Amino acid sequence: MADGEFAIIQKYFAKLGASNESLGVALGIGDDAAILNVSPGTQLVAAADTLVAGVHFPADTAGDNVASRAMRTNLSDMAAMAARPRWFTLALTLTEANPVWLEAFSRTLSEDAAAFNSVLVGGDTTKGPLTVSIQMLGEVPTGAGLTRGGASVGDQIYITGTLGAAAAALNYLTKATPDALEQQLLERYYRPVPRINEALQLRQIASAAIDISDGLLADLGHIAAASGLGANLEIEKVPLFPGLAERIGKARALACALMGGDDYELCFTAPASKQQHLQPLLNSGAITQVGEMTAGLGVTCLDERGRPITPDIFGDQQGYQHF
Amino acid sequence: MADGEFAIIQKYFAKLGASNESLGVALGIGDDAAILNVSPGTQLVAAADTLVAGVHFPADTAGDNVASRAMRTNLSDMAAMAARPRWFTLALTLTEANPVWLEAFSRTLSEDAAAFNSVLVGGDTTKGPLTVSIQMLGEVPTGAGLTRGGASVGDQIYITGTLGAAAAALNYLTKATPDALEQQLLERYYRPVPRINEALQLRQIASAAIDISDGLLADLGHIAAASGLGANLEIEKVPLFPGLAERIGKARALACALMGGDDYELCFTAPASKQQHLQPLLNSGAITQVGEMTAGLGVTCLDERGRPITPDIFGDQQGYQHF
Repeated sequence: MADGEFAIIQKYFAKLGASNESLGVALGIGDDAAILNVSPGTQLVAAADTLVAGVHFPADTAGDNVASRAMRTNLSDMAAMAARPRWFTLALTLTEANPVWLEAFSRTLSEDAAAFNSVLVGGDTTKGPLTVSIQMLGEVPTGAGLTRGGASVGDQIYITGTLGAAAAALNYLTKATPDALEQQLLERYYRPVPRINEALQLRQIASAAIDISDGLLADLGHIAAASGLGANLEIEKVPLFPGLAERIGKARALACALMGGDDYELCFTAPASKQQHLQPLLNSGAITQVGEMTAGLGVTCLDERGRPITPDIFGDQQGYQHF
Repeated sequence: MADGEFAIIQKYFAKLGASNESLGVALGIGDDAAILNVSPGTQLVAAADTLVAGVHFPADTAGDNVASRAMRTNLSDMAAMAARPRWFTLALTLTEANPVWLEAFSRTLSEDAAAFNSVLVGGDTTKGPLTVSIQMLGEVPTGAGLTRGGASVGDQIYITGTLGAAAAALNYLTKATPDALEQQLLERYYRPVPRINEALQLRQIASAAIDISDGLLADLGHIAAASGLGANLEIEKVPLFPGLAERIGKARALACALMGGDDYELCFTAPASKQQHLQPLLNSGAITQVGEMTAGLGVTCLDERGRPITPDIFGDQQGYQHF
């Protein structure tokens, strides 16, 4: 390989991680570790997410698409906690030092870092099967973090944005000439929008939150389980990605939304008394109310007339599991 | 595979990462991210290190050996900054959910975490080629962190412990029945001792520090470069692992020490005026003075009579590079 490890870091990543007091980086990339200034009155929020070539994305995926997916899935974890992203480390394992791939990867990493006010502070570049692991660090005012476990009976259930696009995109990952809608779906898959802005508005309002990585049924199920409650989900209210139902049929679009995962929208709950604070987000369509927490157990799907339905039509797979 | 991702985390890792206020873990494993209480008056120290099967260790290495090496290389980065380890995340990519391997891996991870007062707070378990990436977070009193760049002309150069064992061990990684000395070398390779205790004693005393992962020549070279100085290294003073020179010859033992890497001892500098504070560590043999910083450039090796020598005998490889 042409470039050594140090050369790769120097060429592609060092400029992303210089010391920068205004970003809280007292000492950036280049030493044994970074030194960071955590804001007074905040708690640190830490998450890590790994993407493996051939498992989470096709091995020949362009570097920009890998970078944005890796960054944004981690940023989405910050959103789920209502945390402000601050710093991240990158563990990058490469089969080879391909300059085109590395250039696209590091450029997009840099763009996404800047777009979401976070900065690369360290990591490790190793040789081996292509794997991208990012550890994201954020801050939240002490006690203001949202968890999965805070919902109460009667809390309304909301989601941000629309669902289904990322799962539907899986059919087109290797397509040579995707059409306009397929390109939109792929864009959602590779560049999900971490709902940081919405999440910061939900502090003091939402009672529980999660990001939808495994499908709405599975992830709402996590809120229900962590809160010791049940959830009624009105499936007719679940907003589908525009044009998706028309393209693949309503049942399949709904299956993508409920069980497909990878959309990285937020699912959150809030007491009915707080709904007035959510009205601007509801009016703009940024969020949609889709159900209500109950004293039951697990997630119950309701049809448009409020009758419990068994989601037989969706098959028996609830969410995505890696093993 | 028998176990799903959630089952693996629940079975092998959840117990390591429960919420624990006394360890600063307000919210542990099980949500989208962990919430951590950083101590007032400290800065956060962050590092990440990855081990890839077939590159950093043989693919059939036992889980306990992989866990200890992964943990300790990261803990060593904390030592190099004089930081106290606090929390870590684990990105674990597995080819299969082998219960024997996972049990040994998680048990040793737990033991090493406890031994060095750190706690698992999150991560990701994925399917793919075996890769272990740990991101370690520590704390240092604001302004007290050691870097590579603080050395001055005339500062004495010290190392902790002895060198050469880990590099020599590479010859025995796959040996079925290593003898007693070979077992000691392998122990050093798989379970290097992160010099946290020594490092905490070096705050306010040392001027620069690094951990020796790439060989003393390369790593002392990093201190010299970051400090804008040269370094004279008296190679006869470099303490070799006991019995190593007798086993493989003095020249090869010295080559292991100077260029072999993987020992994870500390190399640090301190002004002569601070030597009195180091006397207890010098007297106990915990540290050894091996040279002095100069106004020159790069690392100059000196023989026992103080004459510069060209390290031809070592070949042309300076330290270990992954590409």
